[in-house]
Amino acid sequence: MFRLSKLTDYGFVLLAHMTGRAGETVTAPELAEATALPQPTVAKTLKALAKAGVVVSHRGVGGGYSLDRAPDDISVAEIISAMEGPVALTACVEGAEHQCDVESCCPMRGHWDSINHAVKTALEGISLADVSSKNNVPDFINMDQPAPSFAQGS
Amino acid sequence: MFRLSKLTDYGFVLLAHMTGRAGETVTAPELAEATALPQPTVAKTLKALAKAGVVVSHRGVGGGYSLDRAPDDISVAEIISAMEGPVALTACVEGAEHQCDVESCCPMRGHWDSINHAVKTALEGISLADVSSKNNVPDFINMDQPAPSFAQGS
Repeated sequence: MFRLSKLTDYGFVLLAHMTGRAGETVTAPELAEATALPQPTVAKTLKALAKAGVVVSHRGVGGGYSLDRAPDDISVAEIISAMEGPVALTACVEGAEHQCDVESCCPMRGHWDSINHAVKTALEGISLADVSSKNNVPDFINMDQPAPSFAQGS
Repeated sequence: MFRLSKLTDYGFVLLAHMTGRAGETVTAPELAEATALPQPTVAKTLKALAKAGVVVSHRGVGGGYSLDRAPDDISVAEIISAMEGPVALTACVEGAEHQCDVESCCPMRGHWDSINHAVKTALEGISLADVSSKNNVPDFINMDQPAPSFAQGS
């Protein structure tokens, strides 16, 4: 099991909500209310998504966030790498602080590349539109009852 | 970045070595010496791979471990799930101790399945043979110098 960070999960939740309102500019407080996520978490997540070019930040009156492109043109690979860094399975010296003494003769050397390429290609083939159901988008804004509490943390 | 456990990495190293000796039965001490991995780590890793049917344990004189099938017929998905559990990207309530209060209206509900299916299919399409280079297999057994030390841990 490859566990993604909670923030990545929240990223998908926010983007799925924005897909339901594609073409619109939505503010962070609106998204926080609509998804029942804490506002600081929403702000942090949107900042990472904006930095990676998945969403665009609009300043000033009427400002907020909108999707950078149509949901069909944003891949799951892009979203994951925006939140987690490069899509790659790794367990050994790549990125590790200490070098491995047997790296030079490791039988797996160079072979993680083909595994990572396959995973990345698979995730590039799925779009935000594919994983967002408009029917599932929560919208507590106009509901009489308050939004349920969401597990805090990031 | 999806970080796999060190034990998964060691699993690949052992299996790559066994691929270089496909058809043979190799003992855990031989594998430990050949790969410069600590013997308890090798034993633990082989036990997990045997439980999942990736390798077969042979008892008695001349016993040891061999690959369950030809390296072409063992997939990377099988190896990863033997060591890590089911191949799945998850960040939310699936498998979590506490239920999520907004699960019922989560816009991502049910959509991780398609992402996980794509990743699993990608990993099923790569075989142990694909990621093992015979040329890279270390064999310190017959070398004059001792095997280099390998970073301990599991």
